[in-house]
Amino acid sequence: MEFGVCYYPEHWPPERWSVDAQMMREAGIRLVRIAEFAWQQMEPAEGHFEWDWLDQAIEVLAAQDLQIILGTPTAAPPAWLSHAYPEILLVDSEGRQRRFGSRRHYCPTQPTYHQHAKRIVGAMVERYAQHPAVVGWQIDNEFGDHETARCYCDACSNQFRTWLTKRYKNIDALNYAWGTDFWSQAYSDWEQIELPNLTITDPNPSQVLDFYRYSSDAYLQFQQFQIDIIRAHDPKIPINTNFMGNFADLNYHDLSNALDLVTWDSYPTGYADVHAWRMYAPGEARPEFAYDVGDPYITGFSHAIMYGLKQAPFWIMEQQCGNINWSSYNEGIRPGTTRLWTWHALASGADAVVYFRWRASLNAQEQYHSGFLRHDASPAQAFEELISMQPEQEQMRSIAAEQLNAEVAILLDYNDLWSVQIQPHRKDFSHMRHLFVYYRALQRLGIPTAIVSPDSDLSQYKLVLAPSLILGDTQRAELLGSYVEDGGSLLLGIRSGFKTPSNRVTDLSLPGVFQPLMNVSVQDWHALSPKAQYPLKSHIAGLNGAATIWAERLESNAAAEDAGIEVLASYAGGPFDGGHALTARSLGLGKALYMGWYPTEDQAVALLAHLAQEADVPRLAELPHGLLAAKRGENTILMNFMDETLSADVQGKHVDVAPRDVQVI
Amino acid sequence: MEFGVCYYPEHWPPERWSVDAQMMREAGIRLVRIAEFAWQQMEPAEGHFEWDWLDQAIEVLAAQDLQIILGTPTAAPPAWLSHAYPEILLVDSEGRQRRFGSRRHYCPTQPTYHQHAKRIVGAMVERYAQHPAVVGWQIDNEFGDHETARCYCDACSNQFRTWLTKRYKNIDALNYAWGTDFWSQAYSDWEQIELPNLTITDPNPSQVLDFYRYSSDAYLQFQQFQIDIIRAHDPKIPINTNFMGNFADLNYHDLSNALDLVTWDSYPTGYADVHAWRMYAPGEARPEFAYDVGDPYITGFSHAIMYGLKQAPFWIMEQQCGNINWSSYNEGIRPGTTRLWTWHALASGADAVVYFRWRASLNAQEQYHSGFLRHDASPAQAFEELISMQPEQEQMRSIAAEQLNAEVAILLDYNDLWSVQIQPHRKDFSHMRHLFVYYRALQRLGIPTAIVSPDSDLSQYKLVLAPSLILGDTQRAELLGSYVEDGGSLLLGIRSGFKTPSNRVTDLSLPGVFQPLMNVSVQDWHALSPKAQYPLKSHIAGLNGAATIWAERLESNAAAEDAGIEVLASYAGGPFDGGHALTARSLGLGKALYMGWYPTEDQAVALLAHLAQEADVPRLAELPHGLLAAKRGENTILMNFMDETLSADVQGKHVDVAPRDVQVI
Amino acid sequence: MEFGVCYYPEHWPPERWSVDAQMMREAGIRLVRIAEFAWQQMEPAEGHFEWDWLDQAIEVLAAQDLQIILGTPTAAPPAWLSHAYPEILLVDSEGRQRRFGSRRHYCPTQPTYHQHAKRIVGAMVERYAQHPAVVGWQIDNEFGDHETARCYCDACSNQFRTWLTKRYKNIDALNYAWGTDFWSQAYSDWEQIELPNLTITDPNPSQVLDFYRYSSDAYLQFQQFQIDIIRAHDPKIPINTNFMGNFADLNYHDLSNALDLVTWDSYPTGYADVHAWRMYAPGEARPEFAYDVGDPYITGFSHAIMYGLKQAPFWIMEQQCGNINWSSYNEGIRPGTTRLWTWHALASGADAVVYFRWRASLNAQEQYHSGFLRHDASPAQAFEELISMQPEQEQMRSIAAEQLNAEVAILLDYNDLWSVQIQPHRKDFSHMRHLFVYYRALQRLGIPTAIVSPDSDLSQYKLVLAPSLILGDTQRAELLGSYVEDGGSLLLGIRSGFKTPSNRVTDLSLPGVFQPLMNVSVQDWHALSPKAQYPLKSHIAGLNGAATIWAERLESNAAAEDAGIEVLASYAGGPFDGGHALTARSLGLGKALYMGWYPTEDQAVALLAHLAQEADVPRLAELPHGLLAAKRGENTILMNFMDETLSADVQGKHVDVAPRDVQVI
Repeated sequence: MEFGVCYYPEHWPPERWSVDAQMMREAGIRLVRIAEFAWQQMEPAEGHFEWDWLDQAIEVLAAQDLQIILGTPTAAPPAWLSHAYPEILLVDSEGRQRRFGSRRHYCPTQPTYHQHAKRIVGAMVERYAQHPAVVGWQIDNEFGDHETARCYCDACSNQFRTWLTKRYKNIDALNYAWGTDFWSQAYSDWEQIELPNLTITDPNPSQVLDFYRYSSDAYLQFQQFQIDIIRAHDPKIPINTNFMGNFADLNYHDLSNALDLVTWDSYPTGYADVHAWRMYAPGEARPEFAYDVGDPYITGFSHAIMYGLKQAPFWIMEQQCGNINWSSYNEGIRPGTTRLWTWHALASGADAVVYFRWRASLNAQEQYHSGFLRHDASPAQAFEELISMQPEQEQMRSIAAEQLNAEVAILLDYNDLWSVQIQPHRKDFSHMRHLFVYYRALQRLGIPTAIVSPDSDLSQYKLVLAPSLILGDTQRAELLGSYVEDGGSLLLGIRSGFKTPSNRVTDLSLPGVFQPLMNVSVQDWHALSPKAQYPLKSHIAGLNGAATIWAERLESNAAAEDAGIEVLASYAGGPFDGGHALTARSLGLGKALYMGWYPTEDQAVALLAHLAQEADVPRLAELPHGLLAAKRGENTILMNFMDETLSADVQGKHVDVAPRDVQVI
Repeated sequence: MEFGVCYYPEHWPPERWSVDAQMMREAGIRLVRIAEFAWQQMEPAEGHFEWDWLDQAIEVLAAQDLQIILGTPTAAPPAWLSHAYPEILLVDSEGRQRRFGSRRHYCPTQPTYHQHAKRIVGAMVERYAQHPAVVGWQIDNEFGDHETARCYCDACSNQFRTWLTKRYKNIDALNYAWGTDFWSQAYSDWEQIELPNLTITDPNPSQVLDFYRYSSDAYLQFQQFQIDIIRAHDPKIPINTNFMGNFADLNYHDLSNALDLVTWDSYPTGYADVHAWRMYAPGEARPEFAYDVGDPYITGFSHAIMYGLKQAPFWIMEQQCGNINWSSYNEGIRPGTTRLWTWHALASGADAVVYFRWRASLNAQEQYHSGFLRHDASPAQAFEELISMQPEQEQMRSIAAEQLNAEVAILLDYNDLWSVQIQPHRKDFSHMRHLFVYYRALQRLGIPTAIVSPDSDLSQYKLVLAPSLILGDTQRAELLGSYVEDGGSLLLGIRSGFKTPSNRVTDLSLPGVFQPLMNVSVQDWHALSPKAQYPLKSHIAGLNGAATIWAERLESNAAAEDAGIEVLASYAGGPFDGGHALTARSLGLGKALYMGWYPTEDQAVALLAHLAQEADVPRLAELPHGLLAAKRGENTILMNFMDETLSADVQGKHVDVAPRDVQVI
Repeated sequence: MEFGVCYYPEHWPPERWSVDAQMMREAGIRLVRIAEFAWQQMEPAEGHFEWDWLDQAIEVLAAQDLQIILGTPTAAPPAWLSHAYPEILLVDSEGRQRRFGSRRHYCPTQPTYHQHAKRIVGAMVERYAQHPAVVGWQIDNEFGDHETARCYCDACSNQFRTWLTKRYKNIDALNYAWGTDFWSQAYSDWEQIELPNLTITDPNPSQVLDFYRYSSDAYLQFQQFQIDIIRAHDPKIPINTNFMGNFADLNYHDLSNALDLVTWDSYPTGYADVHAWRMYAPGEARPEFAYDVGDPYITGFSHAIMYGLKQAPFWIMEQQCGNINWSSYNEGIRPGTTRLWTWHALASGADAVVYFRWRASLNAQEQYHSGFLRHDASPAQAFEELISMQPEQEQMRSIAAEQLNAEVAILLDYNDLWSVQIQPHRKDFSHMRHLFVYYRALQRLGIPTAIVSPDSDLSQYKLVLAPSLILGDTQRAELLGSYVEDGGSLLLGIRSGFKTPSNRVTDLSLPGVFQPLMNVSVQDWHALSPKAQYPLKSHIAGLNGAATIWAERLESNAAAEDAGIEVLASYAGGPFDGGHALTARSLGLGKALYMGWYPTEDQAVALLAHLAQEADVPRLAELPHGLLAAKRGENTILMNFMDETLSADVQGKHVDVAPRDVQVI
């Protein structure tokens, strides 16, 4: 477990650099990320490079034994470039060409932009790839941030057509995949296809899904193009790009496959504020925590997604360590909170925590963002906290040497997520929110949870939750079947198998390709208005109340017993009265369950307590609200996100955890 | 009363068609609407037609004795057309040219588009007009849906000027009509006139009203252009276009005048959800009904508008029969609800109910919309319900042979509606909402109500309500005067006569041209903030409380008695203290009343109970909330929109109506 | 104190003018503003003038001894001009060229527009400047209204670059001032600089501040250009433009410096409704008053800003006298309210009140706006009220002969305001709202308050409040230092000195340039989320509770006593526990206080009661809620904005004030 910091030598006079570098080292910092927004400083005019300052900055840092992650600066093309080649500018879904003056104003597929990106990245890599202090490369910065994941420029329009040609080969195949017999949408020529913006009403959902895929692939290519440049100079150095946790506009499974290392930027208060609407449905109770810690469920959910990308430890490339500047209130952070976040990251699988940023900037957009040093260079509260963590660093390092060993996994697929996003059917139905209900329930139960792709190796998990595998795929159904036959427990949920991978509806009985595995079929499905509740009954302790949001009435092909189906919950009133709501089937060494409604958090807790016990998955502890538990190697880590002392019994031992404090057992 | 269904043979393999057709016939279906989105399938390339599939589909349907309504496909111009002639695309009020990829992406006045529309409609009519199974034509689909009623393209800019030239002949007349002496707006040349979008602040309200009229006329012409093509081949076949009930962007009086048959698309849960904000003012209590029936007041109000267009029975061309896909929750529908909607339509004047749709689509935008068959072709719950209605069909047919005979009418004029929409003066003041208060009151009282144009024959009504005839017109004033003198009771309301037909203010004493008829003048009018209430007193039972929203202080020219004015309500406090609030005057054989405030629903109930009694209009029954009554011929129909049994005494007989059930007496 | 009225002879037949003029005179009107929207009537075609009508209108008015303020008509360029020269049209921040059809559709820097404006203003001035009845000129109308203060057209893009060249001389200076080392934003050529709209995320705050300054300067130049034309013909006639009170998009200090007279347009109900969100933070309690008087705090705040521009009496150029047409409810106004507003204006420093408008317009956008006469020419209620004020006019005149003599001032700087607006850091933190809390507290205490620029002469004030002088400037710091040394009490507040004038952060200890004056430094500052409260303790009576919104922990360089610091409030809990929250330092003859949090209104009342007493500033009276007090000369004026009688003791005398009435003592 190493500490690092984001540093911008280009913002400060060179004579300050050595002071900063020395302070960093003394405070226990080992890693420094630099240069990811310094294109203009490196190449102040087209083809004219200035390296002296960066050479010197690297030397100064290296002199203090600091290890450097270099960022390629493509997230911020300079003024001269935007001015001379306006075709590189992103066009938004309203058809407006956006302007220079902030960052991320480029189109990732634009050929002119590739040319210029190639020159600056190439020159940079050539100069620094072999430098002994340079231990890694970050590509670009926060792909897709500020709603830039999808560009609607003419280059994208062309590239999208090319992408479609490759995918479908002939136009009839595309017409079939998109279901263009509807509303007279069939294409007789590739040239007729446009981007799905500015349509009169909703565009074709299959076209939109393909456009999302194309857009993600555009970044994947842009990333690969930079990886290739780096690899040409250094075949081994770890390459990453900094992700954004639960960000959902790009397919992080694809992007991470091409990278050596997963890193992400963790801003707990910002995420809790700005992204909470994405994670909790309107009207859903939001848990309360100490006011300045953010929402540890949201933070932890992102940690879990990041760990799951490679089922391996990750880095925090930007860790909040004081107030930020881009949320609603940007509240001041109290002593202790930064340490709590650091432990939370470590407990969730981080191997390094790089804090953002060294010193608060005097300039431009992030003036109000804090750093370890204040604007006037005096140490901020977080700097004291950093120093106070030094005695713990050895323990942290030993924990970081371990893997996570979750026995429960939740399946996340970006295509499924997009399908629901494009057609939620019931407003406020979001795939992310749906997964998050199950995740929170597991957190409350003290059960470590992985979040992984359905295509990853699931054999290490005793229990796999697939709340909604909407796009059914025969191969995926087979893999999951094998998982069950080999002894796994699989809970498949509502809307699964409703569609084919091209986002058309299946004409099979639901759950479509998964029907043979489940051996029940969905006889009817209802989205529920907030006024409708379909009462449930179950023998599972605590699993009661009613189905809300979404309900499916299940039926076994024969009488349940004859079909080998155990009915774990049924409807007890309403239009589905008497129908099955939750079924289980033994298959091979494992169990295939179908979950016919969208559970409340409390229902999910009851259900998962039961399933965990059945699947022999242990709970780390009985946890009061606000106390979270994680396990890394043999270390159980208790983290208190509340303002009062909380307690739990861990391995027969009663443990008190002070407010916003941590205990390792 | 016939049942029908919307069917899309182009979405399914030909071998399926005969199965479907046979199922339809066996389920009691007689009418099938087809082809209204199949332009691309009929004309896959410019001037190249493919009719085989449609020939065959028609034969298969006809073979089951099904009668066919053919839709012209102009609501969905194909990709090849949009691509080759982008000038046909609609431009929205933001100045953005919209794109191919959904539907309704055309400008209705665009000459190029007319050319292409002429070719496809002509070819289609030529081929099928004489087919014995084809019993009607639908033109286009849902004119104006998705905010397409008004286009802001260059063709429209030109056509608007031409339209103005015809209306005003010389530019001085236009300047006078628009009051362009204000803010230096006078035009010295027609060329200077632009569309009223993208102005800095509100555009000229007279110009906007003319633009609304022009836009409605543009669809009227586009409709006529298609009518002419059909009539050239078949002088008698009934022609319709499917309206949208309380939709207010087009003048349905004009459009229906040119058609043989009024039809509309009824989606009760969708309307209750998506349009409720248009019907109820913010803060106004919204009635509660069973959760899946929609709001029968909103549905019934649309039925009444549709019946009133021709004062004759109409068809439902699309009747919801399960969950839809375009509202907020798209909730599942319970058994019984589709039958309740069918009876409601019948009781409100429908002669045919064509359900939407036969089978849930696997493709594109409406994937999540239900049908009689599920995606996998299995019968959905609504199909069982359709079959269960067969025993009732004979009774339904006998009721459908009768007319409605409402004795009370509410006057609706689209120009008045637009005038208020353009300048509500008090935010949330909407003409539709205002009429709807009176309508709901009459529904609660069990008094059948027509909604008709002020220009229609009113002689059949004992009581006519004109809540707000804002654009005063001498001829209209004379007609209403004759109506009163001939024995009618006319209640004229606030804001009446405030303007001239060109949307300028009158310089006459208010209510302007209606002043002589009422023999009172409005001395002062106040919009009321939510904090202001002007107390009222009246001898009419139950008519009490205070004026809210809008109040006018009336004065008779002489003392009330000398002027022949009876004061039915007065202000009892506030700045209008002592002034008249509601007056009545006997004139000829009838009565002219002026209503000086915007009533609450309860006030409207008290007032209308009184006026109905005075005018000898009977009530069908005393009705508990949620039980609605209608009368068609001699049949009184009670419909229960609640989840508990409700009762009423009808013609001396106590009738219980089960939840979501119907009784005919 | 004179009464006036806004009149539009061009809207009415010439034969009506003399009737109107006579009625005006008889009702006590002395001033008439005309012609400010009559460009088209004066110049119906390019270069073709028609003066007859205006000659005649002026004669008719002059014949009744009415004095005329002539408006230049540049706020409403005619159709022929917009049509022939579309380049004059404003482009909004979305990049859309806006259209003719309302008003203010021009770009203030556009050279073509200047040419045409020059011709019409020149011709008008030449003709009427010497007319004896013409006593003043108004330039244009409500600069910046309808969000027109900032234009994004190509001409502005060019002019902005020119403006920057003048300000910064060389591009390096600009790069430094804007902190363009951040995010690769440095410019190597002036040509690369664009307007700060349509950026991907927030644009550079220094660039935005300069763009705001440039935009304000553009109007300043456009105003000066017209002043020069008028001055060429009449070196003395008073020139004004009508301001909009608390409008914040233009620098009124700059604009008023170039004018002879400050005038503004006062619409109390409109401002209370439409601008309340700008004045009160979400969640902040809004005071209740009689429902039709508006919010006298908001009205009074604008009066105070207007008086403070020149520290001299102003005119109301448009005074609401009935319902308006542009707010949410446009409620009817009761008898007495217009008189109350008139007195409020007078008591706040108005020397003339020109009512808007003479007669309600039959035409176009303002049809629903009331006037002294109704649409049908009958006198409206406000006309009676005008006549009823005649007996008071003598008293009003004697009061108007006096100055205001506030002893407390609040400092307002538009650059500070914009800096906070561009980066509020904490959402809902608004400079205007912040000042308004202090203003309301002083109103509640009955302490007359000036609102002035920090650069104005402060010597007349005993107590100066500077809640947030965010952009620190050495010269300003020195001036304030002198003010204190000369005996003044200065309360400086949070965020002061955080930035330099170019909107970069200072690298000095906070409060930056003001630190030496305060002799305390801000050790930490926290924006507070709504969940966080930092408890306070203080010996000042009533000053208790907690810091919310924003808190700063202050520290003196040495122990407080040694540093000469008196700690008036401290934190008593939370992360700043024990730190100073409010300090005072004696310096020379005066006192320098630093206020470390954003007070609630009640905290501000307690604090200011204490400070006023210390500074020997008297309170006019103990005032119940809704009773406001002002002092002009020796007259204390009590104004009751409630619907019940309220009382106060003034100069030992018990005074009852009837609802919506006024008492002068």
